Amino acid sequence: MAKVLLSVFLVLVAVSSSLGKPEKNTVKKEKRIPQTLSRGWGDQLIWAQTYEEALFWARKGNKPLMVIFHLEDCPHSQSMKKVFAEDKEIQRIADEDFIVLNLMYETTDKHLSPDGQYVPRIIFVDPSMTVRADITGRYANRMYAYEPTDAKLLLSNMQKAKKFLKTEL
Amino acid sequence: MAKVLLSVFLVLVAVSSSLGKPEKNTVKKEKRIPQTLSRGWGDQLIWAQTYEEALFWARKGNKPLMVIFHLEDCPHSQSMKKVFAEDKEIQRIADEDFIVLNLMYETTDKHLSPDGQYVPRIIFVDPSMTVRADITGRYANRMYAYEPTDAKLLLSNMQKAKKFLKTEL
Repeated sequence: MAKVLLSVFLVLVAVSSSLGKPEKNTVKKEKRIPQTLSRGWGDQLIWAQTYEEALFWARKGNKPLMVIFHLEDCPHSQSMKKVFAEDKEIQRIADEDFIVLNLMYETTDKHLSPDGQYVPRIIFVDPSMTVRADITGRYANRMYAYEPTDAKLLLSNMQKAKKFLKTEL
Repeated sequence: MAKVLLSVFLVLVAVSSSLGKPEKNTVKKEKRIPQTLSRGWGDQLIWAQTYEEALFWARKGNKPLMVIFHLEDCPHSQSMKKVFAEDKEIQRIADEDFIVLNLMYETTDKHLSPDGQYVPRIIFVDPSMTVRADITGRYANRMYAYEPTDAKLLLSNMQKAKKFLKTEL
């Protein structure tokens, strides 16, 4: 029983430390740096804050939306972020042709997790508000995951997302 | 008819210019300043990005949540923001005892607009995830609006929000 409790305790410690939010009391006297919306995924991109905002801009601008789910303490997210932020072609197309949103917390919209909630995960949404479940990476068990070596695939998927489901007007 | 069209056009122009998102093409060559989550409501506060994230922290930290709805081009929002950011007591209590979130786009949760969607509007949420519709400002037609002269009322409402609906454990 003591062992079980210890395990639970360790899990709780791990969860709370891994979530990466600084404890308010420990940093109270230091000057904090305001948090940015880019979080290192491209400071020069214009990031939406919320999914609702992103959908608004996608519809308004008739642009596809790219939603990146990630976590600060996930090494796969970190290495994917580095590739994403440093790839000039990805950054250029993301800037010119996409509405971009990066999230560390899941939304209530189940459509954004077609095969589960994991990170890193990149989901495209058509300006018609349809999640492009057809635009996938190369991993059968995590269809919307990308590895740093998948930059080319991500680029070609971005091109796919630019071909809209319906061409209205 | 021409008049109607003109009005519609003017409204569209007003809406698109008022939304305050810079046109990408016009700023493409300039270096952009990364957008912050505080948006001037207190750079030293730790702001949640989304409502889902804010609820997570409210539950986890057993703290009430303060959601501020505002718009960049709304003079009432701007003047309230100035008061909020410059009032040391509001900032201190917000930092120590609250999870804070400021939003420019409505969420899909209707509970966050008990008497409609307008700005500025401040809604408190109990850590039990209940919207505190009982904590209101002084305007009967916009019950969750605050004017710059309402700083004291806002402070006393923050104190109210700190008295939880249910004391669990």
